[in-house]
Amino acid sequence: MTRIAIVGAAGYTALELIKILLRHPEAEVVTLADRLEGQPHVASIHPSLTARLDLRLEILSPAEIAARADCVFGCLPHGVSASLVPHFLDEGTRVVDFSADYRLNDPEVFATWYNQKHADPERLGKVVYGLPELFREQIVDAPLVANPGCFPTSAILPLAPLLKAGLIEPRGIIVDSKTGVSGAGRNPKLTTHYPECNESFSAYNVGRHRHTPEIDQILGTVAGTPVEVVFSPHLAPMDRGILTTTYSLPTAELSEEKVLQTLRDFYDDEPFVRVVDHLPATKDSTGTNFCDLTARIVRGRVITISCIDNLIKGASGAAVQNFNIMYGYPETMAM
Amino acid sequence: MTRIAIVGAAGYTALELIKILLRHPEAEVVTLADRLEGQPHVASIHPSLTARLDLRLEILSPAEIAARADCVFGCLPHGVSASLVPHFLDEGTRVVDFSADYRLNDPEVFATWYNQKHADPERLGKVVYGLPELFREQIVDAPLVANPGCFPTSAILPLAPLLKAGLIEPRGIIVDSKTGVSGAGRNPKLTTHYPECNESFSAYNVGRHRHTPEIDQILGTVAGTPVEVVFSPHLAPMDRGILTTTYSLPTAELSEEKVLQTLRDFYDDEPFVRVVDHLPATKDSTGTNFCDLTARIVRGRVITISCIDNLIKGASGAAVQNFNIMYGYPETMAM
Amino acid sequence: MTRIAIVGAAGYTALELIKILLRHPEAEVVTLADRLEGQPHVASIHPSLTARLDLRLEILSPAEIAARADCVFGCLPHGVSASLVPHFLDEGTRVVDFSADYRLNDPEVFATWYNQKHADPERLGKVVYGLPELFREQIVDAPLVANPGCFPTSAILPLAPLLKAGLIEPRGIIVDSKTGVSGAGRNPKLTTHYPECNESFSAYNVGRHRHTPEIDQILGTVAGTPVEVVFSPHLAPMDRGILTTTYSLPTAELSEEKVLQTLRDFYDDEPFVRVVDHLPATKDSTGTNFCDLTARIVRGRVITISCIDNLIKGASGAAVQNFNIMYGYPETMAM
Amino acid sequence: MTRIAIVGAAGYTALELIKILLRHPEAEVVTLADRLEGQPHVASIHPSLTARLDLRLEILSPAEIAARADCVFGCLPHGVSASLVPHFLDEGTRVVDFSADYRLNDPEVFATWYNQKHADPERLGKVVYGLPELFREQIVDAPLVANPGCFPTSAILPLAPLLKAGLIEPRGIIVDSKTGVSGAGRNPKLTTHYPECNESFSAYNVGRHRHTPEIDQILGTVAGTPVEVVFSPHLAPMDRGILTTTYSLPTAELSEEKVLQTLRDFYDDEPFVRVVDHLPATKDSTGTNFCDLTARIVRGRVITISCIDNLIKGASGAAVQNFNIMYGYPETMAM
Repeated sequence: MTRIAIVGAAGYTALELIKILLRHPEAEVVTLADRLEGQPHVASIHPSLTARLDLRLEILSPAEIAARADCVFGCLPHGVSASLVPHFLDEGTRVVDFSADYRLNDPEVFATWYNQKHADPERLGKVVYGLPELFREQIVDAPLVANPGCFPTSAILPLAPLLKAGLIEPRGIIVDSKTGVSGAGRNPKLTTHYPECNESFSAYNVGRHRHTPEIDQILGTVAGTPVEVVFSPHLAPMDRGILTTTYSLPTAELSEEKVLQTLRDFYDDEPFVRVVDHLPATKDSTGTNFCDLTARIVRGRVITISCIDNLIKGASGAAVQNFNIMYGYPETMAM
Repeated sequence: MTRIAIVGAAGYTALELIKILLRHPEAEVVTLADRLEGQPHVASIHPSLTARLDLRLEILSPAEIAARADCVFGCLPHGVSASLVPHFLDEGTRVVDFSADYRLNDPEVFATWYNQKHADPERLGKVVYGLPELFREQIVDAPLVANPGCFPTSAILPLAPLLKAGLIEPRGIIVDSKTGVSGAGRNPKLTTHYPECNESFSAYNVGRHRHTPEIDQILGTVAGTPVEVVFSPHLAPMDRGILTTTYSLPTAELSEEKVLQTLRDFYDDEPFVRVVDHLPATKDSTGTNFCDLTARIVRGRVITISCIDNLIKGASGAAVQNFNIMYGYPETMAM
Repeated sequence: MTRIAIVGAAGYTALELIKILLRHPEAEVVTLADRLEGQPHVASIHPSLTARLDLRLEILSPAEIAARADCVFGCLPHGVSASLVPHFLDEGTRVVDFSADYRLNDPEVFATWYNQKHADPERLGKVVYGLPELFREQIVDAPLVANPGCFPTSAILPLAPLLKAGLIEPRGIIVDSKTGVSGAGRNPKLTTHYPECNESFSAYNVGRHRHTPEIDQILGTVAGTPVEVVFSPHLAPMDRGILTTTYSLPTAELSEEKVLQTLRDFYDDEPFVRVVDHLPATKDSTGTNFCDLTARIVRGRVITISCIDNLIKGASGAAVQNFNIMYGYPETMAM
Repeated sequence: MTRIAIVGAAGYTALELIKILLRHPEAEVVTLADRLEGQPHVASIHPSLTARLDLRLEILSPAEIAARADCVFGCLPHGVSASLVPHFLDEGTRVVDFSADYRLNDPEVFATWYNQKHADPERLGKVVYGLPELFREQIVDAPLVANPGCFPTSAILPLAPLLKAGLIEPRGIIVDSKTGVSGAGRNPKLTTHYPECNESFSAYNVGRHRHTPEIDQILGTVAGTPVEVVFSPHLAPMDRGILTTTYSLPTAELSEEKVLQTLRDFYDDEPFVRVVDHLPATKDSTGTNFCDLTARIVRGRVITISCIDNLIKGASGAAVQNFNIMYGYPETMAM
């Protein structure tokens, strides 16, 4: 049994994480931390947990948390995470970090895209990126795992095998993503106010979204050559799900069957990637840790279409998958 | 041509009002007032008005507004309205007030339900309630019209004819209302944050909603005897629309046909009430100033079902209908 | 390990049932039956099951099904069920029946509300109604369990304790229910065509819905006296969830605390009923087998508000709960 | 006053058309035709038109229709339209045709994409494409106008000025479109069944959608050179609206300001195209005849983002705009 603390427990990723861990026979959620007034009971923040978990959201120091838990799931905003994670690691607590703080290798790239100096720059470049389909072996013994961003997961999974096989050009890949609103988190804002975004579809942060360098970096690592994507996120009127459509140029003449077979071969043994022939819908993977993906060739372009649940495979499910690998549990446990 | 000022121009009712008035051949929106920093252009607050109305949201005194406009539409929160309206009236400007401040006759009832002392208590009881189907004649010359609440409109229209005809008991009427989220206004809150209220249905303020005494009062006036409703509002995952289901006891044996005929007779000449045989859906009246309503008798209970667009017949459409009556324009103009 | 056959496997309740049973350590789904051309693979009908269940939807006789399975879950339309269930029972296969065929005790009441003669009338009155919170003991050894309707579950759970305690009048109880669209099943119809029902709210079958006599009968059994409800179902623009608001008259002066305490006492040991103080939202119970409920007293009326996921506690979750009781597994297993 | 007949009056485009024409001071809807049993009243098909239009949907021959109307709006499926339109034209009735039958110039291209022989092939190539922003002058005297497809309108408006100015490469333009569900029409299908497409996002007909050759042809005409787009439509869970994101390569170094200025100059005098600086949302143009569009340069790619209401600027609004031009009414009349 592994004792779990969740830091930043008031948000949506924490809620999903708790729901998964409540089904996990080898994990026990022992501590919830957040900075809310009055240290409220978790059920008053997340009513769906009524009668399911009897903990309060406490205001605790890293040392207090580390004393109670073997593993910390950090569901904190970027910037905050890098100021706390070193303390957990110093105490010997392993960490799965949901924030973007440890995903990028280069503190300058971080500073450019996140408009702030990194609080723990020496560690960058030494933290494993928690996408098991690409980096499973490094996750096993990692003290700290940087849980991937939701958009990057949806873009990297279909593109990595094609880049690795040298089938597509690494420059000018178009990544056109569509996400449900829960990706924006739980703080009310005008853009996520129901009457604003319901019955509406919009693009946002076109070319400026912070997941861009993350996609570039991981795909570049896989390809062995710099990759540059043109990334356009869009907001769709639904709670959950990301569908990402990518467009790239083949390096040589390429058949649809060859692309699909490359994807199938790459993911043959993966429990959570389903290469399908049909065009997947986000609903097929909602509530699951699956990534469904397929490919088409249209007028000489390679198109991939991939779907995930942004809160599961794009966040909390991936985190538990990483946790299972880190602690030697079956990778699909609780999912 | 009547010159219009809209005070509280950043909200949803103001937006709907502007859209209607832009189609009105006899109204000109000359001034928009609100308390936003930087006095922004209306199109930066309401992008749908881009290229349609070239005004800024100004911070203005009542005197400045009254100097420019013949008629003020007050889209202000309760409490605020009663502190401004007297100034407009003193300047000779007529007012259609969207707030609840002038709907109730009794300052004590106001204080009880709105948790504040009324700022202009002497005027209460002398202001016409702007539901033309019941009070058209008093609206014609009124300097100030209290525009009805959205829930009250949806409940009063089906019940008033039955109470007036003495067909139903005035006590214990159940009013079970379901509203779209725009009724909550434009300020982001957790309860109206998309991932909270989307794909969810909930009751709120059961028995404690402030529209309760408003429904009681107007129905009581119509019935000539005190009326007491049990009012339960619910939040439905949609932008717009209210459907209200009422349950009451007949005073004597009563046929469905008799109920329907009473409603049809009462609204025969009304341009905006459609008594229908089928069960109406909110979508049938979305974007219009119509109230669709019908009735059924089930196991000895009288059931009415009525639908309106909460922002049109429940707010801005009703306001323009009142405006048309006040200024002698055809009542359906612009709608 | 219990071998399971699902008959009528192409619908939404079957899909939810499969998802739950795939998590069940003591159940194995061995056979799926339905009458589709070409006996398609389950993943081509339910893409979300890709790589999760490798079965085809076969056209099979009751004898063939009974030969393979210990327990049949019947996800069939009313009328069809009663023509097949006797065959399963004759073969010694136990049945959880989702249809309405075995819920009512009186074949004449069935004929009146379902417009058809019952195919197996002798059995009526001897079949246990599968609501464990009321009839757990009879479920243990039952060869056939009539799984409750979704609306009845949402109405009976809050009302039964109050009727049993004699706190409310058994006549004239108002049951105003609001359901998501999945309750209408998977056959496309104009009323469930997306652009018709999205962004719309409507009442349907007011006073004529077939769940009326089911609610009457079960509540009457509990109360020990005839109960008659006025039942108005409404369609809300969401996939899932039912919220039911009931209004009844107390038999004597009654405090809110007394009502809540009665409910809490009644459900104290129940794993799937949560009596809460706040007003519950359907989303709190979406995807779970919980019924969340609370009560209020408003102007002398007793109001209850209850929420379930119509496909889980309202159908497939309840079915597995019944299955667990029938086969001696922990009642909460897989849920 | 121009007398209007609408053929194919039971669908969504007809409903929107009627709503616009009811506001039109110079148009009178005199006849509705469709092939429904019993020639139902329009309000029984479109309840929102109750008390607004007193006509039945009649089964009529082209000659009967032509005898009553000056102008026919054909809201018919492709294939059907080309079998009727010649009759209307022979009778001297002008036609705005919503179908795809007269949009393409080449009968062979039609046959390839629509899987059928064209019924009126001689006329192809002589019919004006009803996009006033590009072909206003030819519309004025046209007996027949081919009303554009919804996706093509959303793609052509942002791309045409850039291609005409030679700023972008004509080959390999990515057109990634997202549409609301009403674009699929009013016939219930599993893909548009509420519980299937709600809370889901999917791609469909990738590379095979019939609007592809239409976009190619019109953009090719404007560019003066063959254009080939890679077109991927997606279905978003909302009633209305299309957002189209295009990606193209500049022919030479190009600034964002230059692209925006080119668009602004091109549409400076257009009443229904709004070139905006912000990223538009579909909701900004819902219910209007506006196309909102903007552009960005990201990593050397030209990105355009454009929004329309698929039923207004993408269908019925464009049709009335064409009608106004054909009959010499102010182009913005009724809109």
